[in-house]
Amino acid sequence: MKITIKDLAKLANASVTTVSLVLNDKPSRISESKKNEIKKLAELYHYQPNFTARNLVTKKSNTIGLLIPDIENLFFSALAKKVEDELRKLGYSLILVNSNDDHLNDVKLITNLVNRGVDGLLLTLSNDAESHKEVYLRLFDNLKTPFVLVDRVFEECDCPQVYFDNLLGGYLATRYLIKKHHKRIACITSKTGSLNGLQRYRGYEKALEEANIPLEDELVIEGDYRFQSGYQAGDKIIDLKADAVFASNDLMAYGVIRRFKERNKMVPEDIEVVGYDKLDFSSMLGLTLPSVEQNVQDLGRESVGMLMNQLQKKKSETKIILKPTLN
Amino acid sequence: MKITIKDLAKLANASVTTVSLVLNDKPSRISESKKNEIKKLAELYHYQPNFTARNLVTKKSNTIGLLIPDIENLFFSALAKKVEDELRKLGYSLILVNSNDDHLNDVKLITNLVNRGVDGLLLTLSNDAESHKEVYLRLFDNLKTPFVLVDRVFEECDCPQVYFDNLLGGYLATRYLIKKHHKRIACITSKTGSLNGLQRYRGYEKALEEANIPLEDELVIEGDYRFQSGYQAGDKIIDLKADAVFASNDLMAYGVIRRFKERNKMVPEDIEVVGYDKLDFSSMLGLTLPSVEQNVQDLGRESVGMLMNQLQKKKSETKIILKPTLN
Repeated sequence: MKITIKDLAKLANASVTTVSLVLNDKPSRISESKKNEIKKLAELYHYQPNFTARNLVTKKSNTIGLLIPDIENLFFSALAKKVEDELRKLGYSLILVNSNDDHLNDVKLITNLVNRGVDGLLLTLSNDAESHKEVYLRLFDNLKTPFVLVDRVFEECDCPQVYFDNLLGGYLATRYLIKKHHKRIACITSKTGSLNGLQRYRGYEKALEEANIPLEDELVIEGDYRFQSGYQAGDKIIDLKADAVFASNDLMAYGVIRRFKERNKMVPEDIEVVGYDKLDFSSMLGLTLPSVEQNVQDLGRESVGMLMNQLQKKKSETKIILKPTLN
Repeated sequence: MKITIKDLAKLANASVTTVSLVLNDKPSRISESKKNEIKKLAELYHYQPNFTARNLVTKKSNTIGLLIPDIENLFFSALAKKVEDELRKLGYSLILVNSNDDHLNDVKLITNLVNRGVDGLLLTLSNDAESHKEVYLRLFDNLKTPFVLVDRVFEECDCPQVYFDNLLGGYLATRYLIKKHHKRIACITSKTGSLNGLQRYRGYEKALEEANIPLEDELVIEGDYRFQSGYQAGDKIIDLKADAVFASNDLMAYGVIRRFKERNKMVPEDIEVVGYDKLDFSSMLGLTLPSVEQNVQDLGRESVGMLMNQLQKKKSETKIILKPTLN
């Protein structure tokens, strides 16, 4: 038999509100002896709060919504795991929603989460968010639920955000190739429509400029972060006689390397490749692929921390920029 | 200004209960003209139900809890994606919790989800669940929330469950190697403590028996589904002069293949390997690895379907066993 808050109130000869205030440790004028009596009764009868009922008193759902573009993407599944872990330690549950990288889903899902009464939102926007900025900025303006933008952000928006310095990442990758005396460095990018892709590309530009290597437009090939688009870039890169490639993620690096192998180009002897993400699968499958690594544990922890500061109305930074490393 | 159900009730000159019954399409004796009036008002004022309030009337949270052992495991992240997708189509949200493959977390998280008032549970238990069966069976006996066991089940339990025929998978993998005239077939298994691992191992046993190949205990090596344990099995397998390996998952197959390469053993020329999971990374990184494939889309869809049947008190099968294929 499960004991309810009403039963408990009856047993303690108190009102439901009183019992609720005591068990939720809310400030009140209830005497210490009454408080102790209620807490002991709750313990004795193994009272477990019904969270739906609890909502009514504390107006808290103890739930955080996490919007993810693609849970099958290893970076985001690792992020979701870390966020869930951190939130659980703090007594929060996670509602996870997946947008399939579609900005229309973003808007719908954020509205759903708000209507469900989540206490806060961690938002990793769709890849096409940058092209629909006004929609998002209007949405954020009207959002009364605290939120933090995670990984995919609008830099000029002064809303709370935690992300990696993608320009630095692209710069590190390209500078590594320049230091190995490569001159014709191709870039498989995803700079249209994705801010992170654009920033990684800007890092490539910056490193070339710094080394006085002229940027050649034809060496810049647009991909979509998938294996296949890297694979398709392979032939063009061989035809253009590039001696190195910076791929904006490891999947595209895998794709271009696969095509190079089919065309009997040795990596790194004939053509050197740097990726982005540092997936474990490279080393597992015997591929030595230098790659820009983003510490997703840091991203998860900082994002949850920033959201908690908001929930507790603590003053805190509204922008945290994490640094990637080349490994 | 957001309109509340109270405002709506006032505007319609009706009670909150009446408005709630109408907007939730519940059977009632309310006249059609009143129903239409209320619905039109709700539309006119862009009324959006507050789900917390809605709980009180329908006693439904429209939330399903999904327990996953490891969201970073590609099989489970694909499952979570499919489940979320299916649930969303049906108007449900997903609360995702991650047990880190620890049965103590399972018990705690299931209790948490129930206390949060989820309408139903999809449970993928921890790998060590089999060794703590009594704990689970007692928990399930007391569980009033509908639930479905997914992928990792207790076969003798008559609770609703959807899973793959792991014995068939192990059998297919081993028979493939036998048909290629291998006689000394090693098995990297995870049969202690994991029912799926045990069943895959039994499939290996069955195929050997059918082919009159004596089972040699020393060729059976216990792993833990991680790359490293496959890697560590490599030396022993070479020393034992096995000519083929059935690895119970692809990560362990990657590990053993890695060690074989380091020891200059060619795969499949010197020693042939079959895996389990059919990860995309194999083909991306140029590895031809025959592997047992489980259709995770089917698993997600059938699991959600079975849970929905329970929620709607429909009669349905309590056990669905899906068939894997070797590809």
